[in-house]
Amino acid sequence: MKISVLSLFPSYFDGLLNTSVIKRAKDNGLFEFEVIDFRGFTKEKHGHVDDTPYGGGAGMVLMCQPVLDALASIRTENSTVILLTPQGKTFQQSMASELSLKEHLIFICGHYEGFDERIRDYVDLQMSLGDFVLTGGESACAVICDCILRLLPGVIKQDSWQEDSFSNGLLEYPQYTRPEIYDGKKVPDVLLSGHHANIKKWRHEQALAKTYYHRPDLLESVTLSKEDEMYLNSLKKDCQENGSVIK
Amino acid sequence: MKISVLSLFPSYFDGLLNTSVIKRAKDNGLFEFEVIDFRGFTKEKHGHVDDTPYGGGAGMVLMCQPVLDALASIRTENSTVILLTPQGKTFQQSMASELSLKEHLIFICGHYEGFDERIRDYVDLQMSLGDFVLTGGESACAVICDCILRLLPGVIKQDSWQEDSFSNGLLEYPQYTRPEIYDGKKVPDVLLSGHHANIKKWRHEQALAKTYYHRPDLLESVTLSKEDEMYLNSLKKDCQENGSVIK
Repeated sequence: MKISVLSLFPSYFDGLLNTSVIKRAKDNGLFEFEVIDFRGFTKEKHGHVDDTPYGGGAGMVLMCQPVLDALASIRTENSTVILLTPQGKTFQQSMASELSLKEHLIFICGHYEGFDERIRDYVDLQMSLGDFVLTGGESACAVICDCILRLLPGVIKQDSWQEDSFSNGLLEYPQYTRPEIYDGKKVPDVLLSGHHANIKKWRHEQALAKTYYHRPDLLESVTLSKEDEMYLNSLKKDCQENGSVIK
Repeated sequence: MKISVLSLFPSYFDGLLNTSVIKRAKDNGLFEFEVIDFRGFTKEKHGHVDDTPYGGGAGMVLMCQPVLDALASIRTENSTVILLTPQGKTFQQSMASELSLKEHLIFICGHYEGFDERIRDYVDLQMSLGDFVLTGGESACAVICDCILRLLPGVIKQDSWQEDSFSNGLLEYPQYTRPEIYDGKKVPDVLLSGHHANIKKWRHEQALAKTYYHRPDLLESVTLSKEDEMYLNSLKKDCQENGSVIK
């Protein structure tokens, strides 16, 4: 896979590319990554990439020409062009999985007040990270790239991400490591038992319980077994009688 | 405001701090920002901060001791401690507004497979950026900081963010800048008319229309005027007869 990012702040992405598993994957040639500063494409005589909005108003608006000329210089028939914008489809794990199969992703990062509306006509996909406003698309783009890149073959162990939150529709079960007692708080006995079937059952129930307490909306899209439903019913009853005890 | 981040990858935040308005705000002393590498706090003799999970399984789990000792070294009664975790409350603009009023925010960025569950007992708030999985909390933390910092007094012009998407519950209206015609696509006549009342009305209706087509869920929490409702009804009718025309 190749990722190209159109941005006025190329150095923003140094953090992503020099951190942990993403750095190792890049060093091992598992993906290509380039950032193109579209300021280099402007035909405006003072080197500007933005101008005041028609109709008046605060702030500056990115012009079509530098963005779209930069895009045209790298786009091929195998490219998927993604515009980061609040009106886009909200990014989620299933979109990361789909995009991780593409050959070439191009992200356009807006900045300043916004971009000329006509830029939307030239993209394949409009995407938003969530319901909040940023100074530019760079930080959102780095998140989306991190999420996609870790799904590429060889970046992290597959048995590792198959247990992730959201990968099976549930939040992840609680994890514990040494010491057995920290500040008076003890690791649950079952995890010290060495009884693999019990551990597996406990973890699955904890994942169900976490999801029930923190993100009940996620349960609507999970296929539950009969045992799962019985467990959730007992949780509900317990919760009504004693209140929530899950953190 | 002061922001402290606990992270194993302090350089990740260079991008945020050296970009555009956030850099200018930092240079002007509008906020303080520090990243604390909690590896420096570990008492493990080889310098490790993680260990294998009790009960078995893939990956490594961050230990309580280095994270919580680092936290204790900077926490005061004015600190709000935020753990970035998939089970947290999904971050959105209203949370950014609330957090922008705090004196001291401390973010804990997990990494590797996860962290010891007992760490949750020591935080004030658990927060998630969205329904997706990252290699670590750093990229999510940078997004949240960007969103909060731009709301601090003096960072950007206030009349600028009052028109943002989500700030008034609607997506932002379309923006256009020079030239009037790009690749055969013309700026809407009303924006060239100089008629301020008409421009204002058009922009408000466009914001309503964008929200209706792309994020109808947002309309549920907006207080609509009688005119707004009439406009939306005409849109619905038009949409049923002719299909959507808004990009």
